[in-house]
Amino acid sequence: MKTIVLFSGGLDSTTALYVARSEGREPICLTIHYGQLHEREITSAKKIAVSLRLEHWIIPLSLPWGGSALTDSEIALPKGRSEKEISKEIPVTYVPARNSIFLSLAASLAETKEADSIYFGANALDYSGYPDCRPAFLEAFEELIARGTKAGSEGKKIRIIAPLLYLSKAEIVRLGYELKVPFEWTWSCYEGRETPCGECDSCILRAKGFREAGIEDPLMQTMRRA
Amino acid sequence: MKTIVLFSGGLDSTTALYVARSEGREPICLTIHYGQLHEREITSAKKIAVSLRLEHWIIPLSLPWGGSALTDSEIALPKGRSEKEISKEIPVTYVPARNSIFLSLAASLAETKEADSIYFGANALDYSGYPDCRPAFLEAFEELIARGTKAGSEGKKIRIIAPLLYLSKAEIVRLGYELKVPFEWTWSCYEGRETPCGECDSCILRAKGFREAGIEDPLMQTMRRA
Repeated sequence: MKTIVLFSGGLDSTTALYVARSEGREPICLTIHYGQLHEREITSAKKIAVSLRLEHWIIPLSLPWGGSALTDSEIALPKGRSEKEISKEIPVTYVPARNSIFLSLAASLAETKEADSIYFGANALDYSGYPDCRPAFLEAFEELIARGTKAGSEGKKIRIIAPLLYLSKAEIVRLGYELKVPFEWTWSCYEGRETPCGECDSCILRAKGFREAGIEDPLMQTMRRA
Repeated sequence: MKTIVLFSGGLDSTTALYVARSEGREPICLTIHYGQLHEREITSAKKIAVSLRLEHWIIPLSLPWGGSALTDSEIALPKGRSEKEISKEIPVTYVPARNSIFLSLAASLAETKEADSIYFGANALDYSGYPDCRPAFLEAFEELIARGTKAGSEGKKIRIIAPLLYLSKAEIVRLGYELKVPFEWTWSCYEGRETPCGECDSCILRAKGFREAGIEDPLMQTMRRA
């Protein structure tokens, strides 16, 4: 059965994509180019989708009102925070209503392609700061599309599958490792430079995941070689 | 208080905008250019927003997967249907998950601008064919943003206000007439030609509304003069 994978090219969504494949799904990838400063992740997404010969939609979406450090270069990215500090509150990297927008676009594609599900790499454990990654949000979204789509009206349910929701970053790394995720092609850093900054929240959580999983991050190895 | 108005430039959303103003709101208009074949409505939206000196965001959004007669010229628009036929089933002009996408974008703008509500010209009575115009859908969306936004996490509710939800088209026309909506600038026809086709579902419902309200449609008067 076809499934839509919300696919940013990062560690989590790439692992979610590999989970979908391992579960026998036919993934259609959807990447949103929403003016993220780290648009380098889109290059990663393309490379991975091409390597797997997958149907891949890349949708440009302007959110010109800003409101997030991910889309507005005037808002400073938090740097060098401890893991505890990161999950304490909703960070400035929160993009207003971003995952509602992304999931709605995925639902639109799912309905058109008659897919029965959306794979979404949300994680509530090591990054509980974002309200639109929480289980209660995902349940509300399933209800929304059940009520507000043609598919839903015809009794065809579109499920939101979030296989990483209750995993720690280390468990995600281990799962990805087992599924042979090409970690060296994934991109996590919120800055869009040549090499990961190592100091933004996303770099810190990625490093924590690999460290606790006891696996070396091949992206960092590549960077050191370069 | 600031409010976001989902504003297409059509009869319903323009009336919703005038209701928001009459209720003492400060409207910020949001128009989505989603590849609708009748993009002429965007010209209408601009003209009306400029005349009222309102902040107006026009967001281009490509939905390249089609799936609707409104975005795919290969799918024929229904023509000459009776009013009864129109509301019987979900029509081919349904755009998959469109209002979920639009409301999510409105919620993003609302959060960024600290607006407390979204005015939405949905109508469940004379156009009950669209599942994403039904009251149950709007309730589910309010719940979604309560759970999935920073504003919601902080206890700031963003309300969806649908002032036309239970009105007939005739009642909408009468309400717009009282509020001095510039009907001649609004655009309803699903075809993007010089003059309204008079035969698509949207033209038929608009004509019904004016006829039953006993008011002449100034757009049609203008067209006859031209």
